[in-house]
Amino acid sequence: MQEKLTIIKVGGKIVEEADTLNQLLDDFSVLTGYKLLVHGGGRSATHMASRLGIESTMVNGRRVTDAETLKVVTMVYGGLVNKNIVAGLQAKGVNAIGLTGADMDVIRSVKRPVKDIDYGFVGDVERVDAEALATLIRRGVIPVMAPLTHDGKGHILNTNADTIAGETAKALAQIFDVTLVYCFEKKGVLSDENDDDSVIPVLTPNLFREYVGKGIIKEGMIPKLENAFSALEAGVGQVIITSASAIGKDIGTVIKK
Amino acid sequence: MQEKLTIIKVGGKIVEEADTLNQLLDDFSVLTGYKLLVHGGGRSATHMASRLGIESTMVNGRRVTDAETLKVVTMVYGGLVNKNIVAGLQAKGVNAIGLTGADMDVIRSVKRPVKDIDYGFVGDVERVDAEALATLIRRGVIPVMAPLTHDGKGHILNTNADTIAGETAKALAQIFDVTLVYCFEKKGVLSDENDDDSVIPVLTPNLFREYVGKGIIKEGMIPKLENAFSALEAGVGQVIITSASAIGKDIGTVIKK
Repeated sequence: MQEKLTIIKVGGKIVEEADTLNQLLDDFSVLTGYKLLVHGGGRSATHMASRLGIESTMVNGRRVTDAETLKVVTMVYGGLVNKNIVAGLQAKGVNAIGLTGADMDVIRSVKRPVKDIDYGFVGDVERVDAEALATLIRRGVIPVMAPLTHDGKGHILNTNADTIAGETAKALAQIFDVTLVYCFEKKGVLSDENDDDSVIPVLTPNLFREYVGKGIIKEGMIPKLENAFSALEAGVGQVIITSASAIGKDIGTVIKK
Repeated sequence: MQEKLTIIKVGGKIVEEADTLNQLLDDFSVLTGYKLLVHGGGRSATHMASRLGIESTMVNGRRVTDAETLKVVTMVYGGLVNKNIVAGLQAKGVNAIGLTGADMDVIRSVKRPVKDIDYGFVGDVERVDAEALATLIRRGVIPVMAPLTHDGKGHILNTNADTIAGETAKALAQIFDVTLVYCFEKKGVLSDENDDDSVIPVLTPNLFREYVGKGIIKEGMIPKLENAFSALEAGVGQVIITSASAIGKDIGTVIKK
């Protein structure tokens, strides 16, 4: 039987406010077993870009990353957000290490080809070095991954944190029994967007198609769930969509094959 | 016999300009044997602080680090400078990993006590985890260390890069035969500040005292050399002061016990 590994992905809002960050670090630090954290940081990046007079352009929820914006996200994700999480976890007895894809070459990507839209310095993940991550994890070191990868030619590339979490989960599923937890603002996938307690407990591909057909699941939740099903197909044991405050608790939407 | 390890410390100017950075990465990548890089980034931090409307205050060559300045150095040293070096080294086949002292708890420090001057969030190194670094190094992973440490209570602290290099060298000297190379703008310690070729080939404590007495060695070079002698006393095999362009060549001032 494979050893269990929990991969938690948290969005920008949670890690960017002192109170919610501290709560997250508390919850994450008491999680038992092997674990790995992936964080966003988009709000901080937008805020920092604005302070530097750099306009943030989003297309389909993704940041268009020109050379100046790349500097901002490299600083904010790889430096400010990542290192504060790492220091915070160390204070709680978690031996964390902050990683971008460039560090130990853990995530190699290619600059997204320009089709209708030029997203600039944005990376599409090519491969994750599961062995390098597993070696750290087995030594008791907890990877904290920033949403940055590299192209192997010397360039850092901005990469969506959900994608980092999904691809890392798929790669590590070859080694561990992986549970992938996507945390966002709600307690789970809702059947009624006006009722925060209307969490759908279980989603299968059939149920998903049914909810999409009825317009209950829509917009940004659709690619998130498609990612979840793709992770399950690639061997990830379980995907859970929940809120950060529910980490370690039995709340949320469980995605099943 | 202990295995050899070369620790290279480079200042901000070298890593902050594309041409000199690229040359450094070339020279560092062809260095044989175990190696570790420590970088500064002060000029970039000052530049970024200025763009953000934050005034940089230096006292005795050290940056006074208030809360806003700490954010800037965490972003610039831990993110921008560090990750660009790491990605650049990966492109040259060097399996680099970027580290602050918080990552894997490699360098623990204490916030400098306030005496005459309050330096703010500046860390004095307490201990370096040589075993954690040695484990990476022996696996063929090359640490690239940013001038940031942590206090174990959740706070990143700004820490002088020369000090990081010296303390890391001392700790690793228990495991490896360490050569510590401090790179700066000149080819070595000069006997005539107006003649860049007047490099003093060898400095012993006696010669050092003699040169200081005659006013030939002065100002910022004195603490740098005191650090070098202290590293030798703590077991570091050799300290060399030279220019970044001389890495791997037989140029510079060799400091001996």
